[in-house]
Amino acid sequence: MSKKTEIFERYEQLINRPNSVSDFYNGVYQRFTYPVLTRDHVPPFWKYDFSAESCMERLGVNAVFNSGAVYLDGKYYLVARVEGNDRKSFFAVAESDRPTEGFRFWDYPVCLPDTCPEETNVYDMRLTKHADGWIYGVFCSESKETEKADLSAAAAQAGIVRTKDLKTWERLPNLVSRSKYQRNCVLHPELIDGKYAFYTRPQDDFIDAGSGGGVCLALCEDIMHPQVEEEILLSPRRYHTITESKNGAGATPIKTERGWIHIAHGVRNTAAGLRYVVYAFATDLNDPFKIIAEPGGYLIAPLGEERVGDVSNVVFTNGAVVNDEGKVYIYYGSSDTRTHVAETDLARLTEYVFCTPKDPLRSGDCVKQRCELIENNLKVLGDISNV
Amino acid sequence: MSKKTEIFERYEQLINRPNSVSDFYNGVYQRFTYPVLTRDHVPPFWKYDFSAESCMERLGVNAVFNSGAVYLDGKYYLVARVEGNDRKSFFAVAESDRPTEGFRFWDYPVCLPDTCPEETNVYDMRLTKHADGWIYGVFCSESKETEKADLSAAAAQAGIVRTKDLKTWERLPNLVSRSKYQRNCVLHPELIDGKYAFYTRPQDDFIDAGSGGGVCLALCEDIMHPQVEEEILLSPRRYHTITESKNGAGATPIKTERGWIHIAHGVRNTAAGLRYVVYAFATDLNDPFKIIAEPGGYLIAPLGEERVGDVSNVVFTNGAVVNDEGKVYIYYGSSDTRTHVAETDLARLTEYVFCTPKDPLRSGDCVKQRCELIENNLKVLGDISNV
Repeated sequence: MSKKTEIFERYEQLINRPNSVSDFYNGVYQRFTYPVLTRDHVPPFWKYDFSAESCMERLGVNAVFNSGAVYLDGKYYLVARVEGNDRKSFFAVAESDRPTEGFRFWDYPVCLPDTCPEETNVYDMRLTKHADGWIYGVFCSESKETEKADLSAAAAQAGIVRTKDLKTWERLPNLVSRSKYQRNCVLHPELIDGKYAFYTRPQDDFIDAGSGGGVCLALCEDIMHPQVEEEILLSPRRYHTITESKNGAGATPIKTERGWIHIAHGVRNTAAGLRYVVYAFATDLNDPFKIIAEPGGYLIAPLGEERVGDVSNVVFTNGAVVNDEGKVYIYYGSSDTRTHVAETDLARLTEYVFCTPKDPLRSGDCVKQRCELIENNLKVLGDISNV
Repeated sequence: MSKKTEIFERYEQLINRPNSVSDFYNGVYQRFTYPVLTRDHVPPFWKYDFSAESCMERLGVNAVFNSGAVYLDGKYYLVARVEGNDRKSFFAVAESDRPTEGFRFWDYPVCLPDTCPEETNVYDMRLTKHADGWIYGVFCSESKETEKADLSAAAAQAGIVRTKDLKTWERLPNLVSRSKYQRNCVLHPELIDGKYAFYTRPQDDFIDAGSGGGVCLALCEDIMHPQVEEEILLSPRRYHTITESKNGAGATPIKTERGWIHIAHGVRNTAAGLRYVVYAFATDLNDPFKIIAEPGGYLIAPLGEERVGDVSNVVFTNGAVVNDEGKVYIYYGSSDTRTHVAETDLARLTEYVFCTPKDPLRSGDCVKQRCELIENNLKVLGDISNV
């Protein structure tokens, strides 16, 4: 068998490999044995130069992670963050008719309109199927911070594109806000009081969330000249919680009967660097500025192979979809390396968000909260030796 | 089989899983195949809400690590640091009649007297079976640092409780010292010159040991109003050793014929964050302020799965016991995620502490030290092809 044939056979085997539910169980969601997208899912013709005899990679791909997601006409589409060996990211659409396996990239990656000469990198697109009929993509547009002498200082803005078919992308101006930097911005899927609305994360430094931070919501008069005024804080950073160091919006909020469910990320510091987990909260259907549920703790934390990668100890979501049967698929990147999926349904996700107690913020109160649960369970279970 | 039955069956299988000595060998201690406590060892009725149809976790548990330990009437008790998904830790007693397997948590976690309204978190309890008849628990009591603008700044004090049965806990005032922060404090098991004595670690910042640090010993006049005066340095931080960044007391010292054996932790910095290892030293039986042995290097470093977790590259001990047969069990947490055990005996541990050469502090001298060992070995072994 020629090397070329072997490369394509391995690729096809990977794309066609069935996925299965993993051993992990918590009753809230299911994990799967394999990631849904890795760098090995990138078509060989994106990497190799098949015109050369050598069968050698010309442009390697380092990682495929943090994927935006949308469900259209019975199909699942991920707009993945693909990172070349040169550290630059770009977007690419992968498609499957099954939510947990079979994702295949289209022949070409997304060619974003190149409207920002200073833009060095783009990543972490959130897809919003908007009530206005467009699919919007909001992503991080990163440039060199020119005011600082530090070579690695970066400035982040929210870039905005829109499309009807994930093929033709129209670029709108970057979001203007009062904050110097914006990352992790998400467009709300409906108008609020007749206006567009963005989830934002005001930030006065790039890596550290600084003294500000928190997931905010802000209205926008004109999507063609997108500018937000006052950013109202929804989900703050809190001391000794999973959002202590910073937090940010994740997937586009999911509309349920009981409220908008948000799947966001929280970050704390450790002796070994930052740790990113995924958490959830809910806002009022009639007043999306109002928090109505804040389950304590995280929804997803790094586990097993997810723990290690280019940036270890990270799970991060920027895409989740609900299919026609009410199943929910949360796509999440692990350690800036690969994309996984967690499966649940609207009923379970809603129960998780609305029935999980709030974080009582102090160890002593957490013990009381848990002892109540234990006491109640021991009553329900009766003689636990017979369970 | 119902989900509930399945959950309990998996739990019982785990608790009853036999442990076995691992492949690791160094003649000093033995490692075991499995950790003795993980988050999966937490009873399902601490996590699930069994009154709901859904069989869903209401209060997840993230990790079980850094366990204090005590041997009482032929049984092994661990007071584990249990961390909820909300990041708050609390204490819980797990018991077994075998030192390396079979640990089962009691039905409820420890409800510490909640005497410090500002206390946000508690962790890393050291148990001291004291000559006065009480079992003391000294732990880290953490509060928000209110003097700093940084939301994540924390202040640490030594909290103190005592008990006769690990069930009823009396809380004493937090330890008062000249240092602004105290972590990793341990109560010496005997009176020294008629006084209580604490191992301390003076610290002028929370995460960094700052300019101070080192394992110290200080006397305490009145255990009911615990206050230490002068903290005498026993085991200092040293440049280019395993204690370069910081160090601290670990398990309560073990009394042997040749001296008090201390099992402590040392920390160095790396490009991927801090690295924690466990080391040992000895102090004089008649003068516990006097160091009499300082084996160079570490006793335990992260290995295999121990290397990775919520805070990777960490082994940490705060509990070790000696049973009636003179076997020694060192319980150690790995990467802030799970609890393992290392088994040795008093003879081997004593030989390790008193016969391991001191750290010569310079590469050139380390080579000389090793060449002496090699030369001596080659003489003893003779023709090594016949070993």
